[in-house]
Amino acid sequence: MAKFLLNGRPGEALPLSDRAIHYGDGLFETIAVKDGVPLCWEEHMQRLLQGCQRLVIPPPPPSLREEAQTLIPDRGRAVLKIIISRGQGGRGYQSPDTVIPTRILGLYDWPDYPDSLYGKGIDCTLSRVRLGRVPALAGLKHLNRLEQVLARNDVTGRGYMEGLVLDCEDYVIEATMSTLFLISGTTLVTPDLGNCGVAGIIRRIILDRVLEWGLRPQVRHVLLDDVQSAEEVFLCNSILGVCPVTGFEQHTWPVGPATRAIMETLRADGQITGS
Amino acid sequence: MAKFLLNGRPGEALPLSDRAIHYGDGLFETIAVKDGVPLCWEEHMQRLLQGCQRLVIPPPPPSLREEAQTLIPDRGRAVLKIIISRGQGGRGYQSPDTVIPTRILGLYDWPDYPDSLYGKGIDCTLSRVRLGRVPALAGLKHLNRLEQVLARNDVTGRGYMEGLVLDCEDYVIEATMSTLFLISGTTLVTPDLGNCGVAGIIRRIILDRVLEWGLRPQVRHVLLDDVQSAEEVFLCNSILGVCPVTGFEQHTWPVGPATRAIMETLRADGQITGS
Repeated sequence: MAKFLLNGRPGEALPLSDRAIHYGDGLFETIAVKDGVPLCWEEHMQRLLQGCQRLVIPPPPPSLREEAQTLIPDRGRAVLKIIISRGQGGRGYQSPDTVIPTRILGLYDWPDYPDSLYGKGIDCTLSRVRLGRVPALAGLKHLNRLEQVLARNDVTGRGYMEGLVLDCEDYVIEATMSTLFLISGTTLVTPDLGNCGVAGIIRRIILDRVLEWGLRPQVRHVLLDDVQSAEEVFLCNSILGVCPVTGFEQHTWPVGPATRAIMETLRADGQITGS
Repeated sequence: MAKFLLNGRPGEALPLSDRAIHYGDGLFETIAVKDGVPLCWEEHMQRLLQGCQRLVIPPPPPSLREEAQTLIPDRGRAVLKIIISRGQGGRGYQSPDTVIPTRILGLYDWPDYPDSLYGKGIDCTLSRVRLGRVPALAGLKHLNRLEQVLARNDVTGRGYMEGLVLDCEDYVIEATMSTLFLISGTTLVTPDLGNCGVAGIIRRIILDRVLEWGLRPQVRHVLLDDVQSAEEVFLCNSILGVCPVTGFEQHTWPVGPATRAIMETLRADGQITGS
């Protein structure tokens, strides 16, 4: 069971007039915690504050870090989830005149992915659910996640751990819960997120550090052909870390050297956890 | 202030692990109540049950009507909102193995739109926020409403009561909180909702009764040119009723005879309330 703080106090339940319930009117962050430390805290806060700015929600107080610290254990791994909603307000879609945002912190068990994920990679499918193009929301880790719920149910219902997701123009955008990267030669490609998708924290970090691995970054439109012709394919997110993809539809890949290097660097630097 | 029932009991707050909060994983209905009667109850229930089927959420119990009845006043008008979420469950997007849906009933004050809305019509703008095309979610009155929140804030922030919303292919889909209808000659046109938009209850009723007004229904792709060349334009939803549009960008229309006839029939038959 998860432990929660609601606006800084131990809480179990959210007032029924909160806009998170009615409209998904808010944002969230999912943060890996190891031995008392929330990993990539600054990067998560930067995305959260940018999200608040784009949705015109007042940002959380600077004391958020201390608040999180009271919830997270000194030892071992856990998942910290932070939700910021536009707070309580009216029956209609329109934002209330005065916005007092709601802050929910939740601590969850670490999912304990099997070691084999990282050593052998995973086999992915293609989600039959597609993402809508909404530039106004693209990149944001907002609370409107029905597309992801449907896509994940589609993928896991067919026995897969992950699946790639297309938008309505046949561009590959991401996987149902993780960012997609392709490596071809010295080029590291990840989909453009101008129209939809979540701008992942590990995605940002990998793009920022890409020269360390002798790679050249390319953020661009990606087609299924690009995936199939790539030399290495991997997925990443804050909890999964870096995970090689070794199968997708009829295609197979080995766990490639660049994927392995990226995984090892980020683990060594404590930006993702080990297996 | 709203009054709430949570799973049939007076409640104030929703458990923090509910999927409505985390993912907007659910559906809602907004129902006009007049003198103790929830209007178009059967139609609302039909849409709600179809939505549950599409999202694979167990339907609410048949006792929902009696439950609603305990909340609504015997006299006067009010707004009844029903939310069905996929219930509590996990940190991840995937549905839990066992789904016990959550049922929230909320009673709100009637918005009291001014009489002039119906007599003189309203002036609309064009929302700068567009709708994403997600066929898997199209038509559903689901809880992922950030597009509508942003679109309404855009429109009301510029002093308009309503605004038309396009999808990413330049098709007109609806208004930020209501359905769009156009009349040209004896043709009644409303946008196709195969890719996005909410399949409104009053929309359904008008399409079903269209022959009574000597009109021929057409559900099709609508462009801004179609709006501008229409002879009558009106909006509708369960709370607003039928509302003539008399201005949009540079175009003006009178309150037309067909719009007036539709409004009067639905009012007389108690499917929408008077002003």
